[in-house]
Amino acid sequence: MKRIAIDMDDVLAETSIKIIDQINSRLNKSYSHDELLKDNSLKMAFYQDYQSNNQFLWEPGFFLDIAVKDDAVEVVKQLQKKYEVFIVSAATEFPESMKEKLVWLEQHFPFIGWQHTVFCGHKHMIQADYLIDDHEKNLITFSGKPILYSALHNLHIQDYERVNNWKEVAHMFI
Amino acid sequence: MKRIAIDMDDVLAETSIKIIDQINSRLNKSYSHDELLKDNSLKMAFYQDYQSNNQFLWEPGFFLDIAVKDDAVEVVKQLQKKYEVFIVSAATEFPESMKEKLVWLEQHFPFIGWQHTVFCGHKHMIQADYLIDDHEKNLITFSGKPILYSALHNLHIQDYERVNNWKEVAHMFI
Repeated sequence: MKRIAIDMDDVLAETSIKIIDQINSRLNKSYSHDELLKDNSLKMAFYQDYQSNNQFLWEPGFFLDIAVKDDAVEVVKQLQKKYEVFIVSAATEFPESMKEKLVWLEQHFPFIGWQHTVFCGHKHMIQADYLIDDHEKNLITFSGKPILYSALHNLHIQDYERVNNWKEVAHMFI
Repeated sequence: MKRIAIDMDDVLAETSIKIIDQINSRLNKSYSHDELLKDNSLKMAFYQDYQSNNQFLWEPGFFLDIAVKDDAVEVVKQLQKKYEVFIVSAATEFPESMKEKLVWLEQHFPFIGWQHTVFCGHKHMIQADYLIDDHEKNLITFSGKPILYSALHNLHIQDYERVNNWKEVAHMFI
């Protein structure tokens, strides 16, 4: 059975949406995800705000209530019938996040289980046939087939097979 | 640079010693590690007590104050000069443990860092040249060279190269 490793933030979870909400409420701004997608200078301004004000990532609770990506639950459930599915999340930078991510997975993806969940720093020691991830730093060192999941911060990257949503993941694998 | 994956419980940390202490204080027993090593029927009685009374593994604080194995800090520091060292701990079964294990590693092995720390369920997706672990279930599926670190529960296992302490690890690798 082939093995698929799946990232959490901005792949299973709408993490960027929550980050935008946090920046808006903390800095009294009004960024919207759709506008950031279209307007590059707005995106640069947003990332500048984010880099200087991202302490909320370390605060208890941040990772608990992030929305699930459309169709992710149904497609991962389907993938599990044909593949060994692992969730692999770069989480050890955020000590509070790991318990919260386990709770979140148990709530939305109870069919995965702690046995198939990995929290790490670097991902280059992960052995799998496929990795679906939004960060080039994780894909570039991956020894299997890397698949880029589209996110606000990776739209300029050309070097990977790309999926834009979970319907496209289903089309690719099922 | 070759990669060594190193387990935490009963490899870096004296977890069995703390478990024996917990069983003794909770069940009013007087097991000692040295006696358990020598007396097989005593060991079986101990494991029966442990199987029925191990809820402390899920309680906050359990993984915070475990003693470090003799020579582990110095040898891991030496290994880092010649190898890429990753700590790989089966921890997702115990949601409270991950933050505590990060704190413990930062306290005793600050030179490792969250980037080289992995918390997982199954370990069979870990890609490394060596795995030092006390559990056969982790070694048996490992694609690199497995090395069994001696512990109370694995003394009967014959199928792996074995190390009994960190001096022997140093002798093997450095």
